[in-house]
Amino acid sequence: MSSTWVVVEKRPRLKKPVLVEGLPGVGLVGRLAAEQLVNELDAKPFAVMHSSHFPPQVIVDEDAEISMFENTFYYWKNKKGKNDLVILMGDHQGLSVESHYEVSKEAVDLAHKLGVKTIYTLGGFRTGKIVKNPRVFGAVTDSRMRRTLEKHGVVFAGGPQFIAGAAGLMLGLGKLKGMRGACLMGETHGAYADPHSAEYVLKILTEVLKIKISYQGLEEMAKEIDKELERIRKAQKKQEEELRRMHESALKDRMSYFR
Amino acid sequence: MSSTWVVVEKRPRLKKPVLVEGLPGVGLVGRLAAEQLVNELDAKPFAVMHSSHFPPQVIVDEDAEISMFENTFYYWKNKKGKNDLVILMGDHQGLSVESHYEVSKEAVDLAHKLGVKTIYTLGGFRTGKIVKNPRVFGAVTDSRMRRTLEKHGVVFAGGPQFIAGAAGLMLGLGKLKGMRGACLMGETHGAYADPHSAEYVLKILTEVLKIKISYQGLEEMAKEIDKELERIRKAQKKQEEELRRMHESALKDRMSYFR
Amino acid sequence: MSSTWVVVEKRPRLKKPVLVEGLPGVGLVGRLAAEQLVNELDAKPFAVMHSSHFPPQVIVDEDAEISMFENTFYYWKNKKGKNDLVILMGDHQGLSVESHYEVSKEAVDLAHKLGVKTIYTLGGFRTGKIVKNPRVFGAVTDSRMRRTLEKHGVVFAGGPQFIAGAAGLMLGLGKLKGMRGACLMGETHGAYADPHSAEYVLKILTEVLKIKISYQGLEEMAKEIDKELERIRKAQKKQEEELRRMHESALKDRMSYFR
Amino acid sequence: MSSTWVVVEKRPRLKKPVLVEGLPGVGLVGRLAAEQLVNELDAKPFAVMHSSHFPPQVIVDEDAEISMFENTFYYWKNKKGKNDLVILMGDHQGLSVESHYEVSKEAVDLAHKLGVKTIYTLGGFRTGKIVKNPRVFGAVTDSRMRRTLEKHGVVFAGGPQFIAGAAGLMLGLGKLKGMRGACLMGETHGAYADPHSAEYVLKILTEVLKIKISYQGLEEMAKEIDKELERIRKAQKKQEEELRRMHESALKDRMSYFR
Repeated sequence: MSSTWVVVEKRPRLKKPVLVEGLPGVGLVGRLAAEQLVNELDAKPFAVMHSSHFPPQVIVDEDAEISMFENTFYYWKNKKGKNDLVILMGDHQGLSVESHYEVSKEAVDLAHKLGVKTIYTLGGFRTGKIVKNPRVFGAVTDSRMRRTLEKHGVVFAGGPQFIAGAAGLMLGLGKLKGMRGACLMGETHGAYADPHSAEYVLKILTEVLKIKISYQGLEEMAKEIDKELERIRKAQKKQEEELRRMHESALKDRMSYFR
Repeated sequence: MSSTWVVVEKRPRLKKPVLVEGLPGVGLVGRLAAEQLVNELDAKPFAVMHSSHFPPQVIVDEDAEISMFENTFYYWKNKKGKNDLVILMGDHQGLSVESHYEVSKEAVDLAHKLGVKTIYTLGGFRTGKIVKNPRVFGAVTDSRMRRTLEKHGVVFAGGPQFIAGAAGLMLGLGKLKGMRGACLMGETHGAYADPHSAEYVLKILTEVLKIKISYQGLEEMAKEIDKELERIRKAQKKQEEELRRMHESALKDRMSYFR
Repeated sequence: MSSTWVVVEKRPRLKKPVLVEGLPGVGLVGRLAAEQLVNELDAKPFAVMHSSHFPPQVIVDEDAEISMFENTFYYWKNKKGKNDLVILMGDHQGLSVESHYEVSKEAVDLAHKLGVKTIYTLGGFRTGKIVKNPRVFGAVTDSRMRRTLEKHGVVFAGGPQFIAGAAGLMLGLGKLKGMRGACLMGETHGAYADPHSAEYVLKILTEVLKIKISYQGLEEMAKEIDKELERIRKAQKKQEEELRRMHESALKDRMSYFR
Repeated sequence: MSSTWVVVEKRPRLKKPVLVEGLPGVGLVGRLAAEQLVNELDAKPFAVMHSSHFPPQVIVDEDAEISMFENTFYYWKNKKGKNDLVILMGDHQGLSVESHYEVSKEAVDLAHKLGVKTIYTLGGFRTGKIVKNPRVFGAVTDSRMRRTLEKHGVVFAGGPQFIAGAAGLMLGLGKLKGMRGACLMGETHGAYADPHSAEYVLKILTEVLKIKISYQGLEEMAKEIDKELERIRKAQKKQEEELRRMHESALKDRMSYFR
């Protein structure tokens, strides 16, 4: 089997589509911004990404219904502006080194088929500080994008550094297919989910894309997420115990190899 | 080579088949229930699953004959009722994160080819307690299945949680192929094989499927399994020593990489 | 790329060929026996197996010439008897759990194409004792082979146990392709290379196959191997240092993932 | 997806091309020598190698522009001599055992398609000492190459040893495709980048290939690299923190498997 794969329900026809990525990362900034965008625009899901690198378990919700770890592609038709949107929002980037490449490559391949020429990846930039007006840092595939984003207040810090995971690799792999792109990183503490930072990132993104939406939801989301994270943390702790026990014999075998 | 593969000896023609999964897991509950079902119905093996993620060794029995770690598919033709059965019972779910997905995907793909529309996965739910009348907990792919199972006494606990391995993933991957399903989890201590819990799970399953079988075998099986586990534990301990020594030089190489 | 592959230089036409496996394992018993067999019969190499699971390095010999870790297939045409031989002798079984399956599967697939119906895998059985007349233990794919081997003095110990690596998996995977086979395991201390045990294994194998060869070489080989092992151990220790340093930055990256 | 792949922009037509490999290794000796060669000859890039085994992140430069970890193939047309050159210079050899084989195999396959018959791999030979006139050690695929290189002062040390990574595997895999080759290893301390050793390696290589270039750049490069390494070290340290935090939940899941 292919280890990461995308199931496309119905491929939408899109006008000059721009891809926005918001997978889980530092401070959940990218994910939160993407979620608000999907909700406010009422974007429609059309494709789902699965991977055998995602955790080998399903999630059981309050109604005892199960769902898989998955990343979802949404589209939005822009009736007033010139760019339709494709939004990638999801649960995971995978448990192995290689899965980050796979997740990014599958996303970029689909974007390429849909005619995407520009990619924005959203993320957090850890500073360890709590600030009132978080800055938004940027990295780009070419200098033209930098000049555009600087006009909107994006900060471009000097010196070599790295961007980990899909937020970086989707730009790199996209460039190989002739797409240009930018990563927008909201300043964030790093130790907790930060919808406030997400709001600042989203404000710049929507300005650049000339889209008008409300940002109110992010504050409420922040509170809900805080509660849910607490519940998930408890459930996950229990689940870890489970996994550890369930694999007891498997572990013993494997350990005799690698220890 | 494909790392997980199924060898189908002869594909049976089945009438509205339902898939029942019982691979090793918490308290061996699912495996024990499936084994009793196979034995009581005299279900016929027709396909075998192998994987390079299974332990890289063969089992030698008392007659010095070897066999591989493998999972077997059985079928049973239901002469009185409306659903034939496919039962997946086996030895292992694999030693890597990815193998759980592979094992589940291969099983769901075969089920799909056989015309399966409904999947029941069987497992244990660890409570750390010994109880006289173990409850059977459930999780489902849709609310209709929940209503049916509630009538048979299945308990649906609230709040988010996780189901690990094939018992969860087969439902998730099955749903992607249009199959509905439920996981039935027998309350169990967790530290030992529990045919008593398996009996309670099996009673509900057979009630739902309108099948009549005896459950006596499970108690005897419990005693036999206890003995065999002890023997296996000893043999495995010896084998671990072996594996560790055999890979001594390989280990040294690898360690210089990952340490 | 396929991670394990066989390069066949010229496929020989063989008469009822039997496959003999002697890859490195406990006490190097199988490898030593196979090496003596290849040398005494002057068997001809015709195919080589490579794998990306083998150590990622080449060996430099005394003339400064390089060679890869590889497993070699030899054939021997039996002018007096009824079975030609295919002998698999080599350097490694791979550094991952999955590589054992891959190495075994590639070997069995090639054997199948050559018309092999019977497989003998050779190995050591660790006892932690030094004995004058090492016993040869057996495990088989079917009872008929057991009866034949018992006549030649092979000991069949009761109780469940395991055979690790190619010596076990080649029999299991061969059985799936309709081949029968046996594993012959010479009693050995386990902590050092044991040509004495290899001699006992080889004596039984050649008796069964009705082949006459000298076993003298094994004693001399023992002495040479002891010296070479010492040299290799020193070189390997140095090499480990090298690998560890060379991957310093790679290690740091990876560690930040897995630690 | 294929985990290691080469994107060829335009395949050059070359006259009896020789492949020179200089990927990062001990003392960066090979990489530095290859870089000087590319710069001095003004060799042209024509193909790029990517791999999902490379670190899952992108590099951000001083202008905030991103680039991927990648290895680049350059060609140079030799107007005066008889051999054109293909030079492989790059950033990484991968984070897994298997990636070394993959990187080497992709490089050798491309070289084979370009008509390469001879491969020189460049590297460092760690001695732990600082010397004024570093020796250049060699290993070869055949004795004829040894005799040629000995005339140019290459030292051939006796006894078995190993060459790790692409510098060894490209020779081994090349030999399988009928190419001959040699590894040239400059004596180096091992704890720091060593353009001085690289100069000695490059002098021998260019002598053998009858190419005239300046070596001055290597000293200046040395100083620059020292500075850059310091910056990278700081950025990487910060990045490691980031990766570690970003994967916190992923880590927890995985750890419950392998611990």
